[in-house]
Amino acid sequence: MTPPAAAVAGFFIAPDVERMQLDFDKLNGLVPAVIQDHASGRVLMLGFMNEDAFRRTLETGWATFYSRSRSRLWTKGETSGHRLRVREISTDCDQDALVLRVEMEGPGVCHNGYQSCFYRRLVDGRWLESEPRAYEPDSVYKP
Amino acid sequence: MTPPAAAVAGFFIAPDVERMQLDFDKLNGLVPAVIQDHASGRVLMLGFMNEDAFRRTLETGWATFYSRSRSRLWTKGETSGHRLRVREISTDCDQDALVLRVEMEGPGVCHNGYQSCFYRRLVDGRWLESEPRAYEPDSVYKP
Repeated sequence: MTPPAAAVAGFFIAPDVERMQLDFDKLNGLVPAVIQDHASGRVLMLGFMNEDAFRRTLETGWATFYSRSRSRLWTKGETSGHRLRVREISTDCDQDALVLRVEMEGPGVCHNGYQSCFYRRLVDGRWLESEPRAYEPDSVYKP
Repeated sequence: MTPPAAAVAGFFIAPDVERMQLDFDKLNGLVPAVIQDHASGRVLMLGFMNEDAFRRTLETGWATFYSRSRSRLWTKGETSGHRLRVREISTDCDQDALVLRVEMEGPGVCHNGYQSCFYRRLVDGRWLESEPRAYEPDSVYKP
């Protein structure tokens, strides 16, 4: 049986988030969270967490964000199945940003079908897609 | 003679930033910019850019941010000399975030003396410093 993600990640089941003193005030209750592939170091996406999303992430071991457009928590992969198992969490000097090193479940994190959301690179003043799709998004996100 | 950073990076000297269609509206004129070491892939810091900071970054090839606390542009390293030479810029699916792969000048980017601002890791519900200082901050940022 696969152990719960939180046990794998080694986080508290009932985390005392207040004591961790993240600074949610600078950005209207949010901190940016950089999601980095644990194995390759590639930056996969950037999301935002409010205190509840951070707590849920610690409790479950699955990366959970606050959606600004939908005004609710969302666990990455709740539609696609492409969840992100958290292996390590770091914060910065000002405690107003996070880096989460994760293991991806599935071929990619981007809803456009790419491994990383950062699939466009600046070349001669234009954004160019710099990699092939990792999966067909219509087969995952029903149109 | 060292060529200007912008020439090394291969960006436009007079970039047409409007045409690049970054979405600065979601975050009051800012986009988060993840700074990643070009060689190691380590996430070094997270800053915010407004359109002017992004343009300045492209024009000069040095990572330049908008300081929310000081309400002005700042080129990383303008006090410490620890500048960040931009090698590659990527944007995400929503064009509201950036990843910049950089070469560091100097031993570290963090004003607390560490190579990365993300020098604290979550261990058993507490943030623990997980690496030694790379330099003595008082010798760089005069107290």
